[in-house]
Amino acid sequence: MTDRANALQIFGVDGIPEVKVGDDLAGLIIQALQISQVTLESGDVMVVTHKIVSKAEGRLIDLREVEPSPFARQIALAYDKDPRHIEVVLRESKRIVRMDHGVIIAETRQGFVCANAGVDASNVAGQEIVCLQPVDPDASAQRLRQGLAEQLGVNLAVIISDSFGRPWRNGIINVAIGLAGLAPFADYRGQHDSSGYELRASVLAVADELAAAGELVMGKLARRPIAIIRGYRIENTAGSAQDLVMDATRDMFR
Amino acid sequence: MTDRANALQIFGVDGIPEVKVGDDLAGLIIQALQISQVTLESGDVMVVTHKIVSKAEGRLIDLREVEPSPFARQIALAYDKDPRHIEVVLRESKRIVRMDHGVIIAETRQGFVCANAGVDASNVAGQEIVCLQPVDPDASAQRLRQGLAEQLGVNLAVIISDSFGRPWRNGIINVAIGLAGLAPFADYRGQHDSSGYELRASVLAVADELAAAGELVMGKLARRPIAIIRGYRIENTAGSAQDLVMDATRDMFR
Repeated sequence: MTDRANALQIFGVDGIPEVKVGDDLAGLIIQALQISQVTLESGDVMVVTHKIVSKAEGRLIDLREVEPSPFARQIALAYDKDPRHIEVVLRESKRIVRMDHGVIIAETRQGFVCANAGVDASNVAGQEIVCLQPVDPDASAQRLRQGLAEQLGVNLAVIISDSFGRPWRNGIINVAIGLAGLAPFADYRGQHDSSGYELRASVLAVADELAAAGELVMGKLARRPIAIIRGYRIENTAGSAQDLVMDATRDMFR
Repeated sequence: MTDRANALQIFGVDGIPEVKVGDDLAGLIIQALQISQVTLESGDVMVVTHKIVSKAEGRLIDLREVEPSPFARQIALAYDKDPRHIEVVLRESKRIVRMDHGVIIAETRQGFVCANAGVDASNVAGQEIVCLQPVDPDASAQRLRQGLAEQLGVNLAVIISDSFGRPWRNGIINVAIGLAGLAPFADYRGQHDSSGYELRASVLAVADELAAAGELVMGKLARRPIAIIRGYRIENTAGSAQDLVMDATRDMFR
């Protein structure tokens, strides 16, 4: 692998309206790009907050229609939470990794380990509605990539992001949960640094770093769910965010 | 808090020579900026790979002078590692969090949890030398910030970075282990999003996101240990990377 970009530009895209179930996301993004006077270029990396993808795909649950199980009620009572919200979290969980301090850390069906199995109440109109992660975030990224390619004639990479907490460190950061058009890693193994030392452990999760970089221009309070990263040299266009999921046999924290 | 930047530029700084013990890092950086024809501006965030800081501060250990303990020898035998390297890892560890699959996850004296207590063999001239994290990365960041302020008259934020692995996810990403001139978090708690929903869990670890963004222009193979991020609106200039360390009582993965 040659070296990566020496200069990047990152900008947010304004003008995305409140997304509704069934909306054509590529179409909404193209309108917003026009409002923001942004012209996409081939090679750009588009970071998209999963929430607008989930909304367009109808991954919303009305809590008024959820019947919590006895287990969900019990947890909700202990944690002082809404039992219907806990019920949705349990339904989205393939496995509970930890349950303590009022927090549920779960493995989602896609294999991502995160708080509340990625079920999120913020940024969804009406507090009775919660938002789930897309069923197949790689496929969502691929559809968006293809839609923008067809309508704009550009060859992008697309990253669907969510913000996750981490063990040992305070605060949440943006990570990639779906991607299309780029490999999630820059792999330096077997190569040698300037001192001639082999870079043994150097597999960089660049998709996560790109997602984090995109977050810096998004801002939670503005309606700016999309960031464009220009100047990042994509070496390998094939890959899946599933490759970011650590194999259970190697993982010491399951 | 008002909203953050809508556009960022990130560029790498070329021309940093091999750093030696006792080098004036601010001086070397100023020379490199001239070579790279980069003019710093107040408000820029400078991300600095900890390795050049550690080298300048003499945080290098010659393995030929290390006498491994019986415990280090035993671990090294089981993990097929250099017992002297294991010895240094143990000396840098305040506590071992996990030890499995040939990996030691340890808590450093600064409280960061990472592989090998941050002891690193790559990018150090001669394979018999290993590099430790700076003793006080916040203080290192503050010294660099002050040196650049005095010599260039600019008011920067400085982040000292290291690349850490993560539970559950493959690959390493850059994070902040020291900082000066900015708060590590953007705290949205108590504020309301565009749907009127209170952003309860939204404390973003922006120092880590800035560190990750900086890594994208660094490249492990080029000698480019510094990235400048321009356009990020710093709201709060006071803070410590120690605030990123999760309190043991809240941490479910110690």
